[in-house]
Amino acid sequence: MFLRNQWYVAAWSREIGRSLLARRIADEPVVFYRTEDGRAVAFEDRCPHRLAPLSLGQIVGDRLRCGYHGVAFAPDGACVDAPGNPVPKGARVRTYPLIEKWGWAWIWLGKPELADEALLPDFHWQAEPGWAPIGGTLHFKAHYQLLVDNLLDLSHEAFLHMNTIGNNAVAEAPVHASSEGEHVRVTRLMADCPPPPLFVRARGFATNIDRLQDILFSPPCYVSITVQATPAGTNDVSQALRWQVLNALTPETERTTHYFWGLPRQFLVEDRAVDGMLEEAVVRTFNEDRAMLEAQQQVLEERSLDSRTLLTLADAGPGRARSVISRLLRAEQAA
Amino acid sequence: MFLRNQWYVAAWSREIGRSLLARRIADEPVVFYRTEDGRAVAFEDRCPHRLAPLSLGQIVGDRLRCGYHGVAFAPDGACVDAPGNPVPKGARVRTYPLIEKWGWAWIWLGKPELADEALLPDFHWQAEPGWAPIGGTLHFKAHYQLLVDNLLDLSHEAFLHMNTIGNNAVAEAPVHASSEGEHVRVTRLMADCPPPPLFVRARGFATNIDRLQDILFSPPCYVSITVQATPAGTNDVSQALRWQVLNALTPETERTTHYFWGLPRQFLVEDRAVDGMLEEAVVRTFNEDRAMLEAQQQVLEERSLDSRTLLTLADAGPGRARSVISRLLRAEQAA
Amino acid sequence: MFLRNQWYVAAWSREIGRSLLARRIADEPVVFYRTEDGRAVAFEDRCPHRLAPLSLGQIVGDRLRCGYHGVAFAPDGACVDAPGNPVPKGARVRTYPLIEKWGWAWIWLGKPELADEALLPDFHWQAEPGWAPIGGTLHFKAHYQLLVDNLLDLSHEAFLHMNTIGNNAVAEAPVHASSEGEHVRVTRLMADCPPPPLFVRARGFATNIDRLQDILFSPPCYVSITVQATPAGTNDVSQALRWQVLNALTPETERTTHYFWGLPRQFLVEDRAVDGMLEEAVVRTFNEDRAMLEAQQQVLEERSLDSRTLLTLADAGPGRARSVISRLLRAEQAA
Repeated sequence: MFLRNQWYVAAWSREIGRSLLARRIADEPVVFYRTEDGRAVAFEDRCPHRLAPLSLGQIVGDRLRCGYHGVAFAPDGACVDAPGNPVPKGARVRTYPLIEKWGWAWIWLGKPELADEALLPDFHWQAEPGWAPIGGTLHFKAHYQLLVDNLLDLSHEAFLHMNTIGNNAVAEAPVHASSEGEHVRVTRLMADCPPPPLFVRARGFATNIDRLQDILFSPPCYVSITVQATPAGTNDVSQALRWQVLNALTPETERTTHYFWGLPRQFLVEDRAVDGMLEEAVVRTFNEDRAMLEAQQQVLEERSLDSRTLLTLADAGPGRARSVISRLLRAEQAA
Repeated sequence: MFLRNQWYVAAWSREIGRSLLARRIADEPVVFYRTEDGRAVAFEDRCPHRLAPLSLGQIVGDRLRCGYHGVAFAPDGACVDAPGNPVPKGARVRTYPLIEKWGWAWIWLGKPELADEALLPDFHWQAEPGWAPIGGTLHFKAHYQLLVDNLLDLSHEAFLHMNTIGNNAVAEAPVHASSEGEHVRVTRLMADCPPPPLFVRARGFATNIDRLQDILFSPPCYVSITVQATPAGTNDVSQALRWQVLNALTPETERTTHYFWGLPRQFLVEDRAVDGMLEEAVVRTFNEDRAMLEAQQQVLEERSLDSRTLLTLADAGPGRARSVISRLLRAEQAA
Repeated sequence: MFLRNQWYVAAWSREIGRSLLARRIADEPVVFYRTEDGRAVAFEDRCPHRLAPLSLGQIVGDRLRCGYHGVAFAPDGACVDAPGNPVPKGARVRTYPLIEKWGWAWIWLGKPELADEALLPDFHWQAEPGWAPIGGTLHFKAHYQLLVDNLLDLSHEAFLHMNTIGNNAVAEAPVHASSEGEHVRVTRLMADCPPPPLFVRARGFATNIDRLQDILFSPPCYVSITVQATPAGTNDVSQALRWQVLNALTPETERTTHYFWGLPRQFLVEDRAVDGMLEEAVVRTFNEDRAMLEAQQQVLEERSLDSRTLLTLADAGPGRARSVISRLLRAEQAA
């Protein structure tokens, strides 16, 4: 069960082109392609004739033609050809609102009349002058809320990611969690702490640092983390490590998640070697999460998370986000 | 749920010999072997002692001996030895009526007293002088009725098989569908149309052709297609391509099908190179079907075919066949 | 559904050390490790914080620290650290009574106050002067009761193991089955019979032998088989083949079993070549069982063993053992 009246990241814009892309989003099968004039469209990946996946068909001009019996659809979803038949009146395939912004294609699964671009979460750093963006996609065999939990309690960095972004300071520093409407914010300030390994590699810190994590959750599945580190006591922006960890945790099924991530940074923005080094470190780090969350998912297929008996202070953030999602789900069901 | 009082093709006769063949037919596990005098027998593939598969046992003379504790059965299913015990009275394994005809072994799963050879569908071309038979077996991860649907609406040839037997003429020509008792007939005449690629390869057509498809469905799972093509306007039988596509679509489980096919032809009957060329083309063509039907099967595990919203004129044949099968199923259940 | 108030073999003692061992025992996930002073401990393999498997964590001194958020537990299960938090009062992970004896680690899944070492089955031969032990572990994709059935009706040796321990004598000789409280005994005396192949290889018999199988079942999953063979009519212990087949058939899930086996022998006890030859023969023999029992398990996922229609005299032993297990299960459920 997923929220429907929400934008979900469906793909990197560069993934959608003149060949068909099939992807399941929040348990809905969708096929994507681009028209001759470059517009991205999203259809339900089922031919209304015999339910064959349209993604096994062909793009012909602006149309998508089913590969089974050749039924064809215009970009607006209207059936425009059923070979051997008059054009069927009113036949159509379901289409979905689709927006491209900040390098991503965002799909709206719910009522089309509610699809409002103003509801997109703010991920502008991916297309901001002065910021160097990197990014990628991972696939987790775990429910997306486990990924949200993970990102809202970064104390795990001290145990799971000690070779990249973690050290004891992250687990020891207290967090402050708060809610702003449907948003949840968790902040952690680590003053005068040793820099974790990746920070040293990326920015060459030779002394302790002052480190900030400012985490913003936006429903249904977005976590944007502002990260800043400066030599301890200096507040020297010219030496700062500053990046934004952008996470779009699109549910695929109840057990799997498309993990779209970006990491735009505000230092050494011209340095492609830093791009490569960071990308490798991020993928390594997220794969450490993946192993843990996939194991946790296996447990949760036998047992509810409600059966846990130990809560920590750092659970405040994940707990607030789960409450927001539950509240919104109840509201959608009531409507 | 499958029809029981029906003949199903279980195997090619040549597959049954002096080693054990295990095969699931319409969700029943069956083991086949041949006695010393050459008679093919079919047992339920379960030892009545501890339910171990008899197909893990040994043929000893005319008997089948279970490989676990050595219980042995005569070809009529009677238990004739239980090592360490007196011969158990009345103990037996279930046997099935089995007929060999036209190269195939046909099994009857229902009430043995109803098994009547006269109920076999007519596939005599496979053993007819003047016809050159080829044939084979494929395995589809799809319900057998999807295969029946596929063969009763050949308009798909224009989109799925354009490299062998399809071109636009097949999709554009109208079909005529009719019922004769439990049989469904679909005919399509394509006058003065371009020959599809395989027809050119097989018969060297250099001009347009007159092409006929005459499709006969017989329950539960048989489709026999009479195919004829002659140079357009000539009706010249000496230049004709004429073959019979024989399809026995034996359900294995609710999700899988044994596809026994034959393609006897009435031209170049001595030419073994044509055999090989045709076999390759048929397997290629049916594998194109397979990819589509297995994808359709995946969809139908989530969603009923009843939810489709577009019907075409060519759906008349599949629709009639589905009605026949439903009617027969209801009759069997009522009895 | 498994008996809980029982000892189960969880591992060979040598498998438990200073790295974490995860194993499912009777459907409970357990993690094992050894403290600095060498004591073996068993925890439920779930962190009470977020249910992540503790087996993905680290051993730190005597403690086990969760690999996700670093929550740590003492060998008695008490939570002794929750990073970033005061030590949580009363938080703990479930621990299990664990005994090491005769080379094996035995776990108690039920009420800890009932865990009594005196309830262990007698497998002392594995650590007995004058006996040469070999042993190993196999994994069967079959319910453990199928393995119990198998060992209590050794007539199958004549059909499944004719290359090692079986010949016709085993199937033909009558068995005597009896019960002693919760124990079931099955004996089979084969006087003046040919030695099976492995007996010849192991002991060089050149004549017929007198052969004894004395099988003892102890709930929930233990079968201890006393095997003795001497040249026929001699009763000459100096030439005897004598070994004890020790079988601990620990359920993993309802469909899988950990098979711990030992084969201490009382002849050629210094001969390491005999160790190797016997180990190879035992593994080959048990893998023959495995193929059969895994096939039987597949059948039983569709059909109950109750549907069998043929009982043999040798079913007496397996039948008695099943009755004992059923009775004990009912008693546990009533309590």
